[in-house]
Amino acid sequence: MKDKDAIQLVVVGSTAIDNIETPWAKRKNLLGGSASYACAAASFFTTVGMVGVVGEDFPKEHMELYRHFGIDLEGLQIKPGRTFRWAGAYEENMDQRRTILTELNVFATFRPDLPEPYRAAPFLFLGNISPALQAHVLDQVQTPKFIVLDTMDLWITTEVEALRKVIGRVHLLTLNESEARHLSGKHSLIKASKRLLELGPKYVLIKKGEHGSVLFTREGMFLMPAYPLEDVQDPTGAGDAFAGGFMGALAAGGYVGEDAIRRAMLYGSIVASFGVEAFSLERLGMLSREEIEARASLFRNMCQVR
Amino acid sequence: MKDKDAIQLVVVGSTAIDNIETPWAKRKNLLGGSASYACAAASFFTTVGMVGVVGEDFPKEHMELYRHFGIDLEGLQIKPGRTFRWAGAYEENMDQRRTILTELNVFATFRPDLPEPYRAAPFLFLGNISPALQAHVLDQVQTPKFIVLDTMDLWITTEVEALRKVIGRVHLLTLNESEARHLSGKHSLIKASKRLLELGPKYVLIKKGEHGSVLFTREGMFLMPAYPLEDVQDPTGAGDAFAGGFMGALAAGGYVGEDAIRRAMLYGSIVASFGVEAFSLERLGMLSREEIEARASLFRNMCQVR
Repeated sequence: MKDKDAIQLVVVGSTAIDNIETPWAKRKNLLGGSASYACAAASFFTTVGMVGVVGEDFPKEHMELYRHFGIDLEGLQIKPGRTFRWAGAYEENMDQRRTILTELNVFATFRPDLPEPYRAAPFLFLGNISPALQAHVLDQVQTPKFIVLDTMDLWITTEVEALRKVIGRVHLLTLNESEARHLSGKHSLIKASKRLLELGPKYVLIKKGEHGSVLFTREGMFLMPAYPLEDVQDPTGAGDAFAGGFMGALAAGGYVGEDAIRRAMLYGSIVASFGVEAFSLERLGMLSREEIEARASLFRNMCQVR
Repeated sequence: MKDKDAIQLVVVGSTAIDNIETPWAKRKNLLGGSASYACAAASFFTTVGMVGVVGEDFPKEHMELYRHFGIDLEGLQIKPGRTFRWAGAYEENMDQRRTILTELNVFATFRPDLPEPYRAAPFLFLGNISPALQAHVLDQVQTPKFIVLDTMDLWITTEVEALRKVIGRVHLLTLNESEARHLSGKHSLIKASKRLLELGPKYVLIKKGEHGSVLFTREGMFLMPAYPLEDVQDPTGAGDAFAGGFMGALAAGGYVGEDAIRRAMLYGSIVASFGVEAFSLERLGMLSREEIEARASLFRNMCQVR
């Protein structure tokens, strides 16, 4: 018998307190981190548990916001010390970002241990943490139906062998264009994806920011534009919201064929498009499933050749 | 009674002799120019007449290639002097182009006069020539069903008032991302397109190169990725081949609602994707309608959320 409230999706990643500057605004002590964005985005579709770490300084209102999304927090560790802090600034046009500060704090010694109820979850998102920690998570779970792994340039530079190995243990690898080129050594994304598929995953999903995303399989590809926005307030976490919405929609459907993956990419893109309309999780915190469906239907129409 | 061989589409633009360098090859005396690419691409779908100018040095084999495509050449003037010559070099990754030489020659005094049989053609493509010459063409035609205008940075910088005026006389304005931003003064393409639609055209089609294209109307938009290629040999003329394939497919359908425009964009993109697989018109010269349909069907599948 399936427990209706059982955790369908586990998200492992960072939780952070962000200071963000854009050409028009300066905001401090925002809730951030890949796990925060991914869990919030997934929460519209499925039951999600967060594996992460915060310090004793973590503001009560951020914890309340997690609860507002219905995120299960059994996997969120509270450790002595300060929460991971990040500060960044966007240039005019929002297409360039400069990191001002990275203070790992309690995240430096993060060890993702999964609570018992998380270990049988059918969907797992390994956010961008070290390959060794990603492998440590995989060692704790019972054959999930679908595992997605995200990574970043840092690990491609410093831990490439461990990274290749852990990629071989997942179903879908997601990264951005420049990371795909860096890890594969190929400029053409078609060539890059072939190399990355050789590492073992069945799917490679390359994120191209405002230019959309591409899903590669051994048989072909799926091209999806990004939902176009007139005004972007804060692009931080867009990739994580995409991944969270994607995983949430997949988990809600419960099956993982290519058609389901394509639909889930559409939902990921839509949730991410709402996310960047305000700072941090402010827009997602007011978002309804009805708004998501309305924009998804508009977006489908925008992409359709009839 | 409609003459079955009547010219359905008239293309006005440049014809050139190009020298092109890529990281892997160096080619000389290639057939180039916006009208050459656009007419060749359109020829797969409809009857097309070319309005342009060449010098007495124009190689016989280039003229034969035009005939091979079935392009009507009554509008192609042969003038004393040398043909327009252009030389350019592509950087590694083919995403940056450097102009090495521009020699206008007979193109400097080009005056597009339309032969009588062209004046009643229902479809007209005004390639990238000066706004004054584009207006001169419009003064000669009998209310075409659909007029498309292309332009470039040079005219936005030097002739912006004449350009705005002539844009007000066409149905669809096509330009690339940076030109759309330059002409509108807006960075966001949604805002830019609103400004450009205010100039009068019913449609604004923004080309984003390898990132596809977007059609804007007053009611909404249509997003189309580019057909992804593993190897690009020569990107020269891709935008013109796109426009020519687009106009040809539209003219073949004979009607111009948004659905037809979306389908025509798909065909434009497909023909352009073949074009860049070899230098100049070499790939298009060997292309069949069957190959176009096969790739179009593959591409539709690559873009579809099922």
